[in-house]
Amino acid sequence: MIGQEELNRLLLIAPFHQWLGLSIRSASEDGIEIGMPWREEMVSNPAISATHGGILASLIDLAGLYALLNAGTACTSTADLRVDYHRAATPGLLIAEGRIIKTGRRLSVADTRITNNEGRLVASGRGAYNGA
Amino acid sequence: MIGQEELNRLLLIAPFHQWLGLSIRSASEDGIEIGMPWREEMVSNPAISATHGGILASLIDLAGLYALLNAGTACTSTADLRVDYHRAATPGLLIAEGRIIKTGRRLSVADTRITNNEGRLVASGRGAYNGA
Amino acid sequence: MIGQEELNRLLLIAPFHQWLGLSIRSASEDGIEIGMPWREEMVSNPAISATHGGILASLIDLAGLYALLNAGTACTSTADLRVDYHRAATPGLLIAEGRIIKTGRRLSVADTRITNNEGRLVASGRGAYNGA
Amino acid sequence: MIGQEELNRLLLIAPFHQWLGLSIRSASEDGIEIGMPWREEMVSNPAISATHGGILASLIDLAGLYALLNAGTACTSTADLRVDYHRAATPGLLIAEGRIIKTGRRLSVADTRITNNEGRLVASGRGAYNGA
Repeated sequence: MIGQEELNRLLLIAPFHQWLGLSIRSASEDGIEIGMPWREEMVSNPAISATHGGILASLIDLAGLYALLNAGTACTSTADLRVDYHRAATPGLLIAEGRIIKTGRRLSVADTRITNNEGRLVASGRGAYNGA
Repeated sequence: MIGQEELNRLLLIAPFHQWLGLSIRSASEDGIEIGMPWREEMVSNPAISATHGGILASLIDLAGLYALLNAGTACTSTADLRVDYHRAATPGLLIAEGRIIKTGRRLSVADTRITNNEGRLVASGRGAYNGA
Repeated sequence: MIGQEELNRLLLIAPFHQWLGLSIRSASEDGIEIGMPWREEMVSNPAISATHGGILASLIDLAGLYALLNAGTACTSTADLRVDYHRAATPGLLIAEGRIIKTGRRLSVADTRITNNEGRLVASGRGAYNGA
Repeated sequence: MIGQEELNRLLLIAPFHQWLGLSIRSASEDGIEIGMPWREEMVSNPAISATHGGILASLIDLAGLYALLNAGTACTSTADLRVDYHRAATPGLLIAEGRIIKTGRRLSVADTRITNNEGRLVASGRGAYNGA
């Protein structure tokens, strides 16, 4: 297991992750938790300041990948991604919890749930990641 | 049909779409084409300057939605999204082509293909969108 | 909540569910468990007698739907389905556990895991179901 | 390219494909077309004799795989599958058209459309298949 501090350093190598303002909040064998603050450029619908579905898809993509990396699973890239949108993500901190479903030599799968600052489910989904 | 100019205006109401630097390149009944320039903050892997999978997911999400809106289909939000990643998106203009698969009162479906400036397929996928 | 006996009766109204030899093994607010015995006509690859991916997709589709119906969620049909295949399903009883992720007026989402008689994960996936 | 006759022979090695009554109707480099007659045991909702979503998922799974095999792409099994249901499949011949999207050493992707005997789209979806 990589652990929170080193995982945070790896996460922020990606310029897009810096732009998203991400930080690892916890990292264990069971999974990881990543926080993402709201920022104005993330908005899709300005009438309700809702965060764009593509930003939520990004969170699901990366939280699953880093849950696998944290557990020592060799993954290089995302093969495919599936996202369900459950309610609008209005301004506030979002939490993405990534959890490993299956590790494989070729393909590993992880699920991610995104909750808002009231603990309500905003989006959830799954990534399949290519082995190294 | 809404047409290219008005569709471009609608597209850029979203602050995230402005940040992505999007522009409508064509819009017909068959579908629409959106261009997206590369920018450094979009990068996932700095070793090859590859655009983040979440940015590509955003393009697939929005190109399908605007293909439906252009054709006059009433859609309010994305219900779910599926993306396949075919090759790394290194710096250069990306083109997203959105094409309607099925319109429905409750749910409409559109497919999007993203190609790079050599015309090669970078990612492709599908969104299901909630009716108004 | 509908409960195991009545849910079993509803499940077996479908001729295809009878052909699959399904039975409800448990049904609670948290979710349901359905058993499916192996039969020769289900096989895809005769070299290893592995059950066809479409049969596993059927199980994921229906276990999610009946988890929602058991909890009193009004659902009429499947809107879309996603399945990940983790290992070959060789002959033996398969167990499908359906679990509700989100209920909605228009669309409800449920996850299903399929395990073999050694308790190993064979396939998993998600359905989105249309509201009544 | 394998061609229609030999592809049909390969298709029917699978006992489940025999049960489904499948036959290859055409096979070219662009893709393949498979016909499936209705049978009573396939029904989900007996009130309208609609074919079960799992049967349609099976068709999408296998039509994509055989489109790849026909073109000489080495594929061994389905990695993941996604299906959208567009309208009820009432009794009558269904046609599944499989079309290659991307071939890869590790993962290949193919899309399938299912139409009814009035030529209307019943379901559509995509499989990702593991390389040999």
